[in-house]
Amino acid sequence: MDSFSSLITPLCLIDKNKLSANASRMHSLVLRSGLTFRPHVKTLKSVEGAAIYAPLPSPITVSTLSEARYFANAGYTDILYAVGMTPNKLPAVISLLEQGVRVCVVVDSLMAAQYLAKHTQNLTPPLRVLIELDVDDHRAGVAPQSDVLVETAACLSAGKGLVFCGVMAHAGASYDCHSMDAQKAMAKEECARTSLAAKRLAAAGFDCDTVSVGSTPTVLAGIDYTGANITELRAGVYATFDLVMADLHVCQQKDIALSVLTSVIGHQRDKNWVLVDAGWMALSRDKGSDKHGYGLVADSRGTILEGWYVADTNQEHGIIKHKEGLSLPKEGVGYGDMLRILPNHACATAGQYQQYHVTQDNKTVCDVWQSAYGW
Amino acid sequence: MDSFSSLITPLCLIDKNKLSANASRMHSLVLRSGLTFRPHVKTLKSVEGAAIYAPLPSPITVSTLSEARYFANAGYTDILYAVGMTPNKLPAVISLLEQGVRVCVVVDSLMAAQYLAKHTQNLTPPLRVLIELDVDDHRAGVAPQSDVLVETAACLSAGKGLVFCGVMAHAGASYDCHSMDAQKAMAKEECARTSLAAKRLAAAGFDCDTVSVGSTPTVLAGIDYTGANITELRAGVYATFDLVMADLHVCQQKDIALSVLTSVIGHQRDKNWVLVDAGWMALSRDKGSDKHGYGLVADSRGTILEGWYVADTNQEHGIIKHKEGLSLPKEGVGYGDMLRILPNHACATAGQYQQYHVTQDNKTVCDVWQSAYGW
Repeated sequence: MDSFSSLITPLCLIDKNKLSANASRMHSLVLRSGLTFRPHVKTLKSVEGAAIYAPLPSPITVSTLSEARYFANAGYTDILYAVGMTPNKLPAVISLLEQGVRVCVVVDSLMAAQYLAKHTQNLTPPLRVLIELDVDDHRAGVAPQSDVLVETAACLSAGKGLVFCGVMAHAGASYDCHSMDAQKAMAKEECARTSLAAKRLAAAGFDCDTVSVGSTPTVLAGIDYTGANITELRAGVYATFDLVMADLHVCQQKDIALSVLTSVIGHQRDKNWVLVDAGWMALSRDKGSDKHGYGLVADSRGTILEGWYVADTNQEHGIIKHKEGLSLPKEGVGYGDMLRILPNHACATAGQYQQYHVTQDNKTVCDVWQSAYGW
Repeated sequence: MDSFSSLITPLCLIDKNKLSANASRMHSLVLRSGLTFRPHVKTLKSVEGAAIYAPLPSPITVSTLSEARYFANAGYTDILYAVGMTPNKLPAVISLLEQGVRVCVVVDSLMAAQYLAKHTQNLTPPLRVLIELDVDDHRAGVAPQSDVLVETAACLSAGKGLVFCGVMAHAGASYDCHSMDAQKAMAKEECARTSLAAKRLAAAGFDCDTVSVGSTPTVLAGIDYTGANITELRAGVYATFDLVMADLHVCQQKDIALSVLTSVIGHQRDKNWVLVDAGWMALSRDKGSDKHGYGLVADSRGTILEGWYVADTNQEHGIIKHKEGLSLPKEGVGYGDMLRILPNHACATAGQYQQYHVTQDNKTVCDVWQSAYGW
């Protein structure tokens, strides 16, 4: 049990109690839905963390093959690699399949389907494939009403080393939905468009075993999926939450389970600046909803110092100011004192670390969790 | 020799020929100055890379103790840790000293000096310390004309386990100097203010063995340091350069030695988007001078595709568009094709990787360099 003051800063601190509470909230909700829940492990790429928010034998979603290998080595066998598959990654995916991992990849074009069909002939076990849908004009995916959807399913179904499994959508545009009503509406849209695609495919003779939707805001909107043919929900950042989620009212600031522990290097007293050793390497450059600079400031126990935020960063320096230019507080921000920075975007901040320090009492570290990194 | 197409993307690609040319340009310039040159290794945290841009027995500058340990293990013995020292890092610094590394730390307050003096009594070998100056209202440092400068030097000089070595400044504000004239003016300002501090200290009886200045734009401004009492120049991003440096006319876009190799996942043809597997994890969230989105696009051989840039990113997705909304080119951006993204800020992009892939012929990888990471 190391006290915070003996640790080298900056470090990424996980509040295990909050992580557990956030995970319970999500797990209760998805249990009520009756659907499969496939957490995304890209936020907290840690097996020890996943033991809380995605306990074995949970199916999982990954964003890199590095995450897939790391979680497969820890016993996760049902893995959706949810970034469009490219030719250069096929040998690594086949290698996972041959290790007994039930990996599933996604495509969003006939060309990608044709490539996979051609290069997996007689592959054993066969490679599972989902078609990615575009339900919000946001990123990748084929349109649910398009001809290419059916053509792609036909190509995948004909592939001798492939199994066409269904469709997946991710309503990333839910991050722009600033009220629960807007999030519910987006969840219904995501559900309706995905459901339409699955119905069109079934009508064309291509049944979807998997019809997968999700994002933290749309899943937590808690809509009723009864009657739609959705089979699976996905979400990721719910485990730690962050300021972007709090700004959307998906959680409260007090629920945020991840912060960066930093030390005060010095001050520019005439400017009311506190300089800390958390710069953009420690916090990431993500400014989230652009309301909190590079993050909000709390004391080392996690209590928010109202109005103080990281106004600017360099590689290993952060500059803390008060939003109304107040003078420095008399206590808590002296030379060598420790502070916590609440992140705009937990995925981006956590991604800067190869390990996470874990606390339960807010003054000592009870565990250090490792994480996947790279690609 | 792996051809690019067999590698898993995204990856960080170093053009060794350009790196060598950039290093030669800097080395010729600092050689003419007659001053010590202490490269900053925080951009390319690789021993194999440093063999080109900071060959042994070069003194070096680091931004983390992790970099200090990594380069010390590779034989670098003269290391300036240029981020303000905090109490929790002292045991790790003493451990480096005891290994025979001539590590030097910086402080920018009397309080920090007092802490070090109190906690290093009779330390052998003693700890070398520089006072950080604020020469551009930019970040940390004490004012050259302040009383605290002399008080801090007195405290350090009295410390029985300390060696007061002098002063250092970093004109970070040079990144806002958009012409060579403005960069020269900033270099002269940095030199004059730092020189003033050293003279005031000498007059008070505290001689500065080290009077260190630098940033890539101010060093490359190539001003005449004759007559000033500057002893040392520092710079970092000159080794790889980036779009920020090119926008400042410190280099040309063709000099940029670092890029991210990425694969085309798919397209949204109605929107003229190319989707690639380089998102903000691969590129960083750094938007630099906010002129090029998340980076400019080149083909896999490194030829810039005029007008194409990474307009948006998610964690593992990049969306490439043309700045004037042109339709997709007929060749080179098809499914599975590889592209390179030139970074806004090489330090931020390189910082996302634990290894760098190296090319000399622009079509195969001749080496993979490891790097320091974490803190």
